[in-house]
Amino acid sequence: MSESQGNKEITSRSKDYSQWYNDIVIKAGLADYSPVRGCMVIKPYGYAIWEKMQSVLDSAFKATGHQNAYFPLFIPKSFLSKEASHIEGFAKECAVVTHYRLINDPNGNGVVVDPEAKLEEELIVRPTSETIIWSTYRDWIQSYRDLPILVNQWANVVRWEMRTRLFLRTTEFLWQEGHTAHATSEEAVEETRKMLDVYADFAENTMAMPVFKGVKTENERFAGAIDTYCIEALMQDGKALQAGTSHFLGQNFAKAFDVKYLTQEGTQEYVWATSWGVSTRLMGALVMTHSDDFGLVLPPVLAPIQVVLIPVGKNVQLESTRAKCKELASELKALGIRVKLDEDDKKSPGWKYSEYEMLGVPLRLVIGPRDLENQTAELARRDTRQKEIVPCDGLASRINETLDRIQAELLQKARAYRDSHTYKVDTMEDFEKVLDSTGGFILAHWDGTSQSEEAIKEKTKATIRCIPLHQEKEAGVCIYSGKPSMGRVVFARAY
Amino acid sequence: MSESQGNKEITSRSKDYSQWYNDIVIKAGLADYSPVRGCMVIKPYGYAIWEKMQSVLDSAFKATGHQNAYFPLFIPKSFLSKEASHIEGFAKECAVVTHYRLINDPNGNGVVVDPEAKLEEELIVRPTSETIIWSTYRDWIQSYRDLPILVNQWANVVRWEMRTRLFLRTTEFLWQEGHTAHATSEEAVEETRKMLDVYADFAENTMAMPVFKGVKTENERFAGAIDTYCIEALMQDGKALQAGTSHFLGQNFAKAFDVKYLTQEGTQEYVWATSWGVSTRLMGALVMTHSDDFGLVLPPVLAPIQVVLIPVGKNVQLESTRAKCKELASELKALGIRVKLDEDDKKSPGWKYSEYEMLGVPLRLVIGPRDLENQTAELARRDTRQKEIVPCDGLASRINETLDRIQAELLQKARAYRDSHTYKVDTMEDFEKVLDSTGGFILAHWDGTSQSEEAIKEKTKATIRCIPLHQEKEAGVCIYSGKPSMGRVVFARAY
Repeated sequence: MSESQGNKEITSRSKDYSQWYNDIVIKAGLADYSPVRGCMVIKPYGYAIWEKMQSVLDSAFKATGHQNAYFPLFIPKSFLSKEASHIEGFAKECAVVTHYRLINDPNGNGVVVDPEAKLEEELIVRPTSETIIWSTYRDWIQSYRDLPILVNQWANVVRWEMRTRLFLRTTEFLWQEGHTAHATSEEAVEETRKMLDVYADFAENTMAMPVFKGVKTENERFAGAIDTYCIEALMQDGKALQAGTSHFLGQNFAKAFDVKYLTQEGTQEYVWATSWGVSTRLMGALVMTHSDDFGLVLPPVLAPIQVVLIPVGKNVQLESTRAKCKELASELKALGIRVKLDEDDKKSPGWKYSEYEMLGVPLRLVIGPRDLENQTAELARRDTRQKEIVPCDGLASRINETLDRIQAELLQKARAYRDSHTYKVDTMEDFEKVLDSTGGFILAHWDGTSQSEEAIKEKTKATIRCIPLHQEKEAGVCIYSGKPSMGRVVFARAY
Repeated sequence: MSESQGNKEITSRSKDYSQWYNDIVIKAGLADYSPVRGCMVIKPYGYAIWEKMQSVLDSAFKATGHQNAYFPLFIPKSFLSKEASHIEGFAKECAVVTHYRLINDPNGNGVVVDPEAKLEEELIVRPTSETIIWSTYRDWIQSYRDLPILVNQWANVVRWEMRTRLFLRTTEFLWQEGHTAHATSEEAVEETRKMLDVYADFAENTMAMPVFKGVKTENERFAGAIDTYCIEALMQDGKALQAGTSHFLGQNFAKAFDVKYLTQEGTQEYVWATSWGVSTRLMGALVMTHSDDFGLVLPPVLAPIQVVLIPVGKNVQLESTRAKCKELASELKALGIRVKLDEDDKKSPGWKYSEYEMLGVPLRLVIGPRDLENQTAELARRDTRQKEIVPCDGLASRINETLDRIQAELLQKARAYRDSHTYKVDTMEDFEKVLDSTGGFILAHWDGTSQSEEAIKEKTKATIRCIPLHQEKEAGVCIYSGKPSMGRVVFARAY
């Protein structure tokens, strides 16, 4: 293995970005394919990262007044038809439960579906829960005193996907879905934007992943929403990834499920709704934002192991370096740092170095016999792959600071990449040139019509990722139609 | 409402125990029926209690070396047939996915299943995950170095139930399922018993619910297990409830899915397995162990709100008592106590008292104008419904101690109930007398045959809950057959 070229178990990004991604996900033990078409197994190391994400998000939801609840996995088929545009977007590719019993095959080949046990109405495995939740809110809401309802659910959902990729697009995935109910439109819009901010903060401060905040065009809107807000991140191959969405649903679902409330003035009004969600797709975004040809790179906040300690030496010397590592490990644990001490003497130090690089452990601390003499240690950063010899004295606080620094620098680095790959473009020619060279976000004028949007997509495979929330007013002409435009929108090819 | 008789919104236990249970679950906002047959909605207050249970259990699993992971919701039909007894126990009543697409009804009535989108092999919504997990473990396990695998999953499962009851028996429920793989039978048995102890500790120390630990008879064993260990609790109506199970699966699933490992000696052996789980059923057990005719009673460890503070008074006086409550609330929060300050002045103190009794908040602290003068407060315990006037000085530490005392006394009370309802019985006549009067656990001799077990069940509706783990050797004769027995087993009518 050549030190400078990457881990030989991983395809390099330059050779095949898509294969590089799969290699990392599988070799770092994040997830694996399953015997069920399009479904994945989330392996312990990957799930530990997801748990950290959940924990940070869950605290943020609770800090903004939300409570968790749980609604049924199954949705009666007829519910999906109640909101006209929702059914168009969701009900088509989904898992349908039609029977509730198996019987022994009369021909002796295992079991078969019992034709007698056919459901009167088919059940759909939830692709999203607006319908089942709003049918429930009808019972929860009578008057303005019952509002707002600020509820979130952690759940699995199923969308039958033809082409799947681990984490990025799977038939079953894990997510959270917030579903709130409000007395006024203003309050619902405020909630929609507040949760977008929660997501953006999470992306930047926890995942170290900078995002654009914006609003989707009508074409890209959630099926059943008045407005879909989103955060969009840029992956290392220049493709965009939608990392979270927050929907202002207006009164669409309240009307579909007849959810009215008694106002303070004594009138009956339909309730206003929002929904918002992020999913295990974020795991894919995390991999593609920071990792390199040596393996996973993790921001310390999300790393299941933040520091690995490896004692080096032989026989008596190994005893001593091991003892020193043990001492340091408990010191670090006491500070709340997540530590692993690797004492396995069947594996060589070199093997271990490349293993923990693969796993994206932010810091590696090695103590060898010479370190012991000098009261030093070798500290290596995973992100920069820089090593330095540091004194044991004050090591714990140095490690704490270094972890903070790595977290901050990963964000800086990702932001620098994103900024250097965000282009202002004024002609179709330059637009296509960017897409075919480095990729990235393209800020370009658009005339506001679905027609031009579709035509650009057809021609270039780039879509409007969002209309920036704080769009600068700037007169210009649509790169496609030449018609007037009042500001630039964000285009990219996307996952 | 008569103070001594209970909350008028709740049916009394003596009148109709089953209705009392439903009333509590619904009126305390724990769960509700859903539009989907047999599925429930877990409401925010109920879910908050479940989250506390999850958090304590999850820590205990991690402390014993387990990691979480996630496996697919769907199981290919053929997998279920691979373990012969497993299919008998599980595959029969289950949700079967047969299609993956809906299309617009040609007759214009919403959507219908697309007959073109029929799955080649039907998918079963997991009733439990042994099969999908062991088909995955085949890829994870090559040699003894890959063992043990200690994995847990938090998930939803579906078992098509004909008669459902909120929390106790629902078509969909939430649970955790541990699935471990070991090199030896001894190690797997040790794991099975270790997790049984984790469950028993949780039941007693977190839920304040005493349990019997034991082994199931062959009749009551998990489908596919060599031995099923269980914890059994006694509800207030004298019926038993199985609160958790831990299965030693032998090599059954390894053989069904061909999971072998290379031993240190270089031979190939089948892997040994365990699985263990507890579910949202525990919520039902919690309600039925402690609650009374005034509503829910919660052990402080699991209470989402541990202390509610209610300021009383009018106008300026209310301002002062409110200020005092605020001050106390922040003092309590600083100690990590979960506090709610109820300042809503549209509701009367009396209404609030009965509301928080319904919700099972362990402690209520009321401050009125006279308290303010005397530097006192009224502290009321939910479990005993006793009130006392206490000095404000040192209140925080008094509350902390009282919460601990309540936790301990709830367990004592439940244990006293259980012990006084556990009978040694030697004749069928006495056996039936107990069942038809107070109910409870019956320790009786049994000849060890399925025949007698079935006959007793048929005659009395009582089943063998378990063979106690530490069964006293005592010669006797089976209460049914008169044949010799070497020790007593635990009978009861059960949920």
